[in-house]
Amino acid sequence: MTMSVTPKKAIRVVVWGENRHEQINEVVRGIYPDGMHATIAGGITELLGDDVTVTTRVLDDPEHGMTEELLAETDVLLWWGHTAHEEVTDEVVDRIQKHVLEGMGIIVLHSGHHSKIFRRLMGTTCSLRWRNDGSDRELVWTVSPRHPIAEGVPQPLIIPGQEMYGELFDIPDPDELIFISSFTGGEVFRSGITYRRGYGKVFYFSPGDEVYPVYHHPGVQRVIANGVKWAYSERERESYLVTPMYLPGGFDRPVLGSPDGLVDYYTRELIEPRENAG
Amino acid sequence: MTMSVTPKKAIRVVVWGENRHEQINEVVRGIYPDGMHATIAGGITELLGDDVTVTTRVLDDPEHGMTEELLAETDVLLWWGHTAHEEVTDEVVDRIQKHVLEGMGIIVLHSGHHSKIFRRLMGTTCSLRWRNDGSDRELVWTVSPRHPIAEGVPQPLIIPGQEMYGELFDIPDPDELIFISSFTGGEVFRSGITYRRGYGKVFYFSPGDEVYPVYHHPGVQRVIANGVKWAYSERERESYLVTPMYLPGGFDRPVLGSPDGLVDYYTRELIEPRENAG
Amino acid sequence: MTMSVTPKKAIRVVVWGENRHEQINEVVRGIYPDGMHATIAGGITELLGDDVTVTTRVLDDPEHGMTEELLAETDVLLWWGHTAHEEVTDEVVDRIQKHVLEGMGIIVLHSGHHSKIFRRLMGTTCSLRWRNDGSDRELVWTVSPRHPIAEGVPQPLIIPGQEMYGELFDIPDPDELIFISSFTGGEVFRSGITYRRGYGKVFYFSPGDEVYPVYHHPGVQRVIANGVKWAYSERERESYLVTPMYLPGGFDRPVLGSPDGLVDYYTRELIEPRENAG
Amino acid sequence: MTMSVTPKKAIRVVVWGENRHEQINEVVRGIYPDGMHATIAGGITELLGDDVTVTTRVLDDPEHGMTEELLAETDVLLWWGHTAHEEVTDEVVDRIQKHVLEGMGIIVLHSGHHSKIFRRLMGTTCSLRWRNDGSDRELVWTVSPRHPIAEGVPQPLIIPGQEMYGELFDIPDPDELIFISSFTGGEVFRSGITYRRGYGKVFYFSPGDEVYPVYHHPGVQRVIANGVKWAYSERERESYLVTPMYLPGGFDRPVLGSPDGLVDYYTRELIEPRENAG
Repeated sequence: MTMSVTPKKAIRVVVWGENRHEQINEVVRGIYPDGMHATIAGGITELLGDDVTVTTRVLDDPEHGMTEELLAETDVLLWWGHTAHEEVTDEVVDRIQKHVLEGMGIIVLHSGHHSKIFRRLMGTTCSLRWRNDGSDRELVWTVSPRHPIAEGVPQPLIIPGQEMYGELFDIPDPDELIFISSFTGGEVFRSGITYRRGYGKVFYFSPGDEVYPVYHHPGVQRVIANGVKWAYSERERESYLVTPMYLPGGFDRPVLGSPDGLVDYYTRELIEPRENAG
Repeated sequence: MTMSVTPKKAIRVVVWGENRHEQINEVVRGIYPDGMHATIAGGITELLGDDVTVTTRVLDDPEHGMTEELLAETDVLLWWGHTAHEEVTDEVVDRIQKHVLEGMGIIVLHSGHHSKIFRRLMGTTCSLRWRNDGSDRELVWTVSPRHPIAEGVPQPLIIPGQEMYGELFDIPDPDELIFISSFTGGEVFRSGITYRRGYGKVFYFSPGDEVYPVYHHPGVQRVIANGVKWAYSERERESYLVTPMYLPGGFDRPVLGSPDGLVDYYTRELIEPRENAG
Repeated sequence: MTMSVTPKKAIRVVVWGENRHEQINEVVRGIYPDGMHATIAGGITELLGDDVTVTTRVLDDPEHGMTEELLAETDVLLWWGHTAHEEVTDEVVDRIQKHVLEGMGIIVLHSGHHSKIFRRLMGTTCSLRWRNDGSDRELVWTVSPRHPIAEGVPQPLIIPGQEMYGELFDIPDPDELIFISSFTGGEVFRSGITYRRGYGKVFYFSPGDEVYPVYHHPGVQRVIANGVKWAYSERERESYLVTPMYLPGGFDRPVLGSPDGLVDYYTRELIEPRENAG
Repeated sequence: MTMSVTPKKAIRVVVWGENRHEQINEVVRGIYPDGMHATIAGGITELLGDDVTVTTRVLDDPEHGMTEELLAETDVLLWWGHTAHEEVTDEVVDRIQKHVLEGMGIIVLHSGHHSKIFRRLMGTTCSLRWRNDGSDRELVWTVSPRHPIAEGVPQPLIIPGQEMYGELFDIPDPDELIFISSFTGGEVFRSGITYRRGYGKVFYFSPGDEVYPVYHHPGVQRVIANGVKWAYSERERESYLVTPMYLPGGFDRPVLGSPDGLVDYYTRELIEPRENAG
């Protein structure tokens, strides 16, 4: 038994919500009076306390709230969108993708499966089978024992009312399959899946339709909080080097071609005069 | 459009049945009067015709029917066992494993999840959740589009009566996840999974309890026939070389140490006298 | 032993070449007088004969040769590009991606790792470490025994002169890792990898720099021909359905919402009047 | 910035060494005067300090040191064996496997690839290509960016002298591929791989021949220490339930059959009289 006292950096979390249904649909507003993003953010704060700082942004913020400044200071981004995916500008999608590839974690929720950023990271349509007629209970079964995202999650996690999402789900084979859901109608769905893209971690979790109080469910909140901890990387944001080449044995020293020959990528000093360069 | 005329070798299939329930349980005998193995074999023959030759073996055959001679002439082995897994000798399990690793395909069915050979190939307990109280319909959903094992299989495949098998299923993460089943009780199960072990292909398919007519179901027969074609390898049986080493650049020439030095693994000629050998 | 006489459809292959180096670099033109695409196409034809029909297209063709008409009639597309990736229009990239997701196979070669279409399908930068100073021999080692793409490929495949491509390669974890290469400088590279995207198969194979006669190498030609057979799907091109939903138990009958209620996706007949729809 | 003060349990690590070469080979004894296991243990202690308690056991200890009592108190076991794999009793192998499946982490080193416990967990021969003639430098390249086992490991990790291990390595496809090595002779090897088996994590790391000072190498020590942290599970040891079944909706309550009907698995109270049981 040892005692470890570590000053720890809080995980900087941003919850992004489309925030449109809340404006136009009384049912949604009744369940999420401050917006779905606020409820999601609240659940994370409640479960992770001082280990996180949580803020929210919405579609109608300038640049959808996804400024370079904010993303550079974000460890984990959560994304809920549905009716207005096409309103998100490509420029913002490019920016978010870049930050994921450089090490920012991202958690995509429910109808976010069809968001531009998720389709960008997957390379597929991310389409699925669905039904929302009020008849479905969702059971979320863990199939990856001991995965940190499943810690403390009941087997099964029972969501009394929920939209049905069913296979075939048009995604690349996941790196990890954590949850499989079944619905009253008999359908199944890969409801908790992870991917790595570049230096960033991606977690998709499907429960969460706007007309059910899914994000008030303690089990769902637990999964999302676990996801935040899992998607977080302690390491610095880092770029893949795109253009440099390497000399034999110069394993850590990327170089560039120049009119004079090969130059060091970082110092720009000449290493190999042109006559020897390949 | 071209015309190709290829004399083709038939796939040599052996269906192994434990054949115990059929002896002691009238219900089972009523459904499978000639034994479950006979019905399984019949389905394969009906669907694949001249592309296969199918024979059967049972637990009570000498050496359980799994002689070295037969296995050496078997392309794909199917395995159904339940109540007598422990009666299968370790020697026979060793032998089957060796043939799988050298290139024989194997399809493990239903309660075969707890067979010695499947646990040997997996390295885990292969335990699962189950219920057999007559209340369950199984829906088998395809999640791997275009996998040859799923070809021609309806989405979903509906099995009116079936034992429930549920997660958590204690298996290594599959190489390929082809089918996920749901049951009336709401449980889910990874019901169609594949692995490679050595040069051999492994397919586990869970539908098939002895008290339901599952192996008479055309959709189930289709999956099994597809599995046979998938698990078959046209290449010769082949061993991994265990003991030899290699000289630098002698990429295709394994060698052995001897009192005189290094000798060629195949010709046994001296390559390097002892004084130079490492 | 049986005789099977099957009239078989030839695999329709299109080799796409950027064809720029050949115009401006005498070394390249000396090695590939008719263009690299012609040599690649020739190797496929030589090895697969009547099982394929092979045509070629280049960047400077109208629509880069990638018309809807041609893609609809293409089973497997091969892609070699390098210096002009950015000249390929986004519209053509969208079109190719759509066909891959619907079932067209694609083989991306060498510097095609940085092509728009490969990055689109991967979701990452696809960057890597490289060196081209004439000092490297590439050894291509098979690590996936019995994969059809590795059939008949020597262990290792020795490419006397080749550009070095090294890790870290910024790709999603491959579905299958078939080849790992090493280079004289000691670098390693995942040189043969596969992915599934939608209904389509993707194979990336890294050997093939324009200043070496790599595509004249019989072993490389064998890998590419194997790749063509592997990436080919006998099934019809097929779309994921994007918008429809399903009624409970209506597993095969997608429906749409309308002012009057739910209508059948295919027949457009009314199924559920509005008052009952969810 | 927050301050978290958590009393933390130290990770209980056991390093198992075969300890035979050290008895009979002066070269090995010169490099590892207290045995290889002592050097490996020392490296872990040096790097992880109070976060671990490390002890060692050897083949010639009673029960090879692998008593039920010790294993029940072990979080992560490291295994180095080579010349005496067959002397390890099957009973001890069964016991270690059981603890891995219940949640103990295991790290298998170098020639441990052929140990009974590794082959048991893999289901394959685990054979490979090798050469030990003093000619090889090993370069260990990271291909899984941001994996905790690769943290702080140079790219590449350079091991000046080492036995060559080469493909084909007869293992199941790894869950995660972290390191690929190359050797002076041009061979490659999947040198850092992980698997999950049951509730336990498995890490195989290949550098470490007894006639080279590999375990004194700071980079190798870093990988092993990272592996210990990764393989550790904070959760309690846990068994998969083998025999019980479940009632519909009784998701958390396993039951057993008895002469009187179904009884609760834990309390042994009667739940369903025989007449209703399936």
